[in-house]
Amino acid sequence: VFEVWHSDLAARIGRLQTPHGVVETPAFVPVVHPVRQTVSTQFLKKMGFDLVITNAYITLCHYGDEARRRGIHDIINFDGSVMTDSGGYQVLEYGSVKVEPETMAQFENDIKSDIPIPLDRPTGYGLEYEKAKEYVAITLKNALESLRVINDNTGAIWVAPVQGAEHFDLVEYSARELDTMGFEMMALGSPVELMEAYEFAMLARMIVSAKRVIPAKPIHLFGAGHPLTIPLAIALGCDTFDSASYMLYAKDNRYMTPNGTIRLDELSYLSCQCPVCSSHTVQELHKMETDMRTIEIAKHNLHILKAEVEAVKQAIMDGRLWEYVMQKARAHPKLMEAAQIFKDVEMLEEGTPLFKEKAIFFYDPIDQHRPEAKRFRRMVTTFQSSKMKKKKKLILCPEDEIHPFYSTTSYKDIVKKFPDAQVCSYSPFLGIIPAEISDIFPASHNLATKSDHKLEDYPTFVESLKSFADKFEKILIIAPDDFMRQAAKATRLNAHLVDDISAL
Amino acid sequence: VFEVWHSDLAARIGRLQTPHGVVETPAFVPVVHPVRQTVSTQFLKKMGFDLVITNAYITLCHYGDEARRRGIHDIINFDGSVMTDSGGYQVLEYGSVKVEPETMAQFENDIKSDIPIPLDRPTGYGLEYEKAKEYVAITLKNALESLRVINDNTGAIWVAPVQGAEHFDLVEYSARELDTMGFEMMALGSPVELMEAYEFAMLARMIVSAKRVIPAKPIHLFGAGHPLTIPLAIALGCDTFDSASYMLYAKDNRYMTPNGTIRLDELSYLSCQCPVCSSHTVQELHKMETDMRTIEIAKHNLHILKAEVEAVKQAIMDGRLWEYVMQKARAHPKLMEAAQIFKDVEMLEEGTPLFKEKAIFFYDPIDQHRPEAKRFRRMVTTFQSSKMKKKKKLILCPEDEIHPFYSTTSYKDIVKKFPDAQVCSYSPFLGIIPAEISDIFPASHNLATKSDHKLEDYPTFVESLKSFADKFEKILIIAPDDFMRQAAKATRLNAHLVDDISAL
Repeated sequence: VFEVWHSDLAARIGRLQTPHGVVETPAFVPVVHPVRQTVSTQFLKKMGFDLVITNAYITLCHYGDEARRRGIHDIINFDGSVMTDSGGYQVLEYGSVKVEPETMAQFENDIKSDIPIPLDRPTGYGLEYEKAKEYVAITLKNALESLRVINDNTGAIWVAPVQGAEHFDLVEYSARELDTMGFEMMALGSPVELMEAYEFAMLARMIVSAKRVIPAKPIHLFGAGHPLTIPLAIALGCDTFDSASYMLYAKDNRYMTPNGTIRLDELSYLSCQCPVCSSHTVQELHKMETDMRTIEIAKHNLHILKAEVEAVKQAIMDGRLWEYVMQKARAHPKLMEAAQIFKDVEMLEEGTPLFKEKAIFFYDPIDQHRPEAKRFRRMVTTFQSSKMKKKKKLILCPEDEIHPFYSTTSYKDIVKKFPDAQVCSYSPFLGIIPAEISDIFPASHNLATKSDHKLEDYPTFVESLKSFADKFEKILIIAPDDFMRQAAKATRLNAHLVDDISAL
Repeated sequence: VFEVWHSDLAARIGRLQTPHGVVETPAFVPVVHPVRQTVSTQFLKKMGFDLVITNAYITLCHYGDEARRRGIHDIINFDGSVMTDSGGYQVLEYGSVKVEPETMAQFENDIKSDIPIPLDRPTGYGLEYEKAKEYVAITLKNALESLRVINDNTGAIWVAPVQGAEHFDLVEYSARELDTMGFEMMALGSPVELMEAYEFAMLARMIVSAKRVIPAKPIHLFGAGHPLTIPLAIALGCDTFDSASYMLYAKDNRYMTPNGTIRLDELSYLSCQCPVCSSHTVQELHKMETDMRTIEIAKHNLHILKAEVEAVKQAIMDGRLWEYVMQKARAHPKLMEAAQIFKDVEMLEEGTPLFKEKAIFFYDPIDQHRPEAKRFRRMVTTFQSSKMKKKKKLILCPEDEIHPFYSTTSYKDIVKKFPDAQVCSYSPFLGIIPAEISDIFPASHNLATKSDHKLEDYPTFVESLKSFADKFEKILIIAPDDFMRQAAKATRLNAHLVDDISAL
């Protein structure tokens, strides 16, 4: 059903096989209204959206048996893959829907949905714990009942709705139960309100809670149509995400940009080069009839969403998703707060390739927590415990412009003078770098900003230095900069500091 | 000739009046080859480029009198404004050109160039000081000789070539001399090599050196066609910049992105939505005939350059150019190094509006050096020296979610208890905020990342606290966080710390 082709952090480029074709993920899934869709599904298909989502509940209410006869693809005039939501959103908006889970599941089966979702009971955001727990229980019960009518021979991918929102233990519990029931794909509920409140950090933690439990199966994120949250959601492991935002924002004259949305009347320039923007001026958009303008802005918004997903996919291929997410984080302080949690999310390491073709970039203290840096520091610990038993003297030497360190003349000079010493260079981001493994990624494959790094900002460096230096009897530090001087002091190293190797 | 309509940092949105129309700046100026132009000037015009640059020296060699008769607009088939370079680039590439400065100036006059540039002697990058000084002298002499033949009645804007490159005193000297000669516009020489070497910090310092001397006149930057340098150059005050990069990169199969360039064979996804990219796949680009592909990539590159300029212009209108530059700086460590110089460039304050409609964002320690923050801290100093003579007690209180601080209940409670005290809130980015002026921009109009700010990273805060607290006999600090505790310690404040106002 789902194959992963590339990955970086928890993000992956994959292929989802549905009865109507292959969908490359990560994918933005436009919401299509089964009755009143204004941007045609043909346009969506032509833009490259191979998967759309529509509402089975509205389809049932409006078309009934006609939909059973014609099938959902004919109803919405789309020959790609179709995901169907089943009224959960209506429950969230209006309190309840007049249909049983089994009826709904049977209907989704009958209309030949490629990726059907059982009727869930969304927790939304801000629901008290006991109530949320109750909703989770209802959703689980619905899912189980839906399973009874599911026909395994259709090839449809049934998606389990994971609820719980900001109650992360409920999210985990939900995910675990649904996983056990055997669903092949999960959908994370109700982030719309989290996103509208710019609670991106909470959204991130919610995704992590679910993803930890179900690392392998594809994950859909409901209602995630804000350009700001796309890189975050993908980097944390979401594979598909739907939204009607392109249309809702358009109706509100909100124009998407790579950094968020802007009201049309605040817009002076069209920096976008999409077919809409390259054939109109801001003034022309203003002068259009409302309906026409809404459609044009909606189309533009779709281009922005698509571009964002493609940019993230390219970043995955480049091995620069971390850089991309951290750059995007500067679009809003709340997004930056969300990006901070990347420091501690261990699962980001699993998807991050062991070797990357392109150099990685180090800018800020947060970059010391990149999976590549964590992994390198761990490798150094292993190296030390296995390869250096006999050495008693440690020599620390600043990094050279030339990589790897063992190929530099300064290294060779030192080794000539001290053949029995363990020679290392170091980096605020990577910690201690033993010369012998200075060619291992990313020790030789990084580019760091040269600036006055402050020791206080690099606790991993202090830790790395302390534990490495611990085993040596004599320590010699060559040409220490302020950073190294402070580090030696902070770790109470009994070290000898010299400005120049030639002085020895 | 040049009117400024909006500004932010040293950037400005302006209008340049030439004999062939108005050019809105900042503007990217595509290089057009007078003989072998492959992307048609009609296409450039249609894309919205109102100003192009072409080479008068090549035009002279190839067309001679025919060009004098037909005029440059007819020769290149472009009815917008035309800037003409005069062989300086050929001097840089081939060592010398066979023409006198006066002949060249006369020719540019004859072909009705809208924005002609006298024959200069580019210093390039890496030239030793004495040689650079000589070249600057030659350029100044050429400029003076050119002035003799300049016909003031044509309305043409003669541009003075500022040379000197990394020898900043020569840049300043050049700029000052040319300014005195009466040129209405300046052009900064030879950053191509700086940019190819990713020496963005040096490029930035070169621009600052010239801009300081000529703050008002429009400034052109030669050969600045890398998408990474556009925000930097505009933010530091460059109004126009030309390049043939769109074509040169295309010939080399290099595809521009908002974050740089990427080789076509490294490209897996087209995240761009421009007319080229939204009508082709990567595979289709690969399969095209070379000439066809070059043109398509060149067109795409032009869209990226245009989009970048428009995005910067929108950021100027939004008052968020600082945010934009700092975000863009995360595209490459070398660009980040260049952005560091923004801390100390005083002239950025002049163009930054006193009030902005949108909140500004504070993310990182560098943001304490934003012009708005510097200005606020200065205002606090003035406020203190003029308004608070009689108060003996200072009360410091953390910022509330609600702005301005004087409208909060915590402020009102304090004032009730201590009517004679000076009450202030504070921010790592803005320093001390006296309640009375807590509604002044940006004290109430900012959004800051909530994270563990480290005192060491905020020297301006320490300075602000020290100088403000200095005049008081008694200091009370309410509900101090770690940051404030450390600050009180670092400044040796003789302060009383309490957890809660109600305890008093």
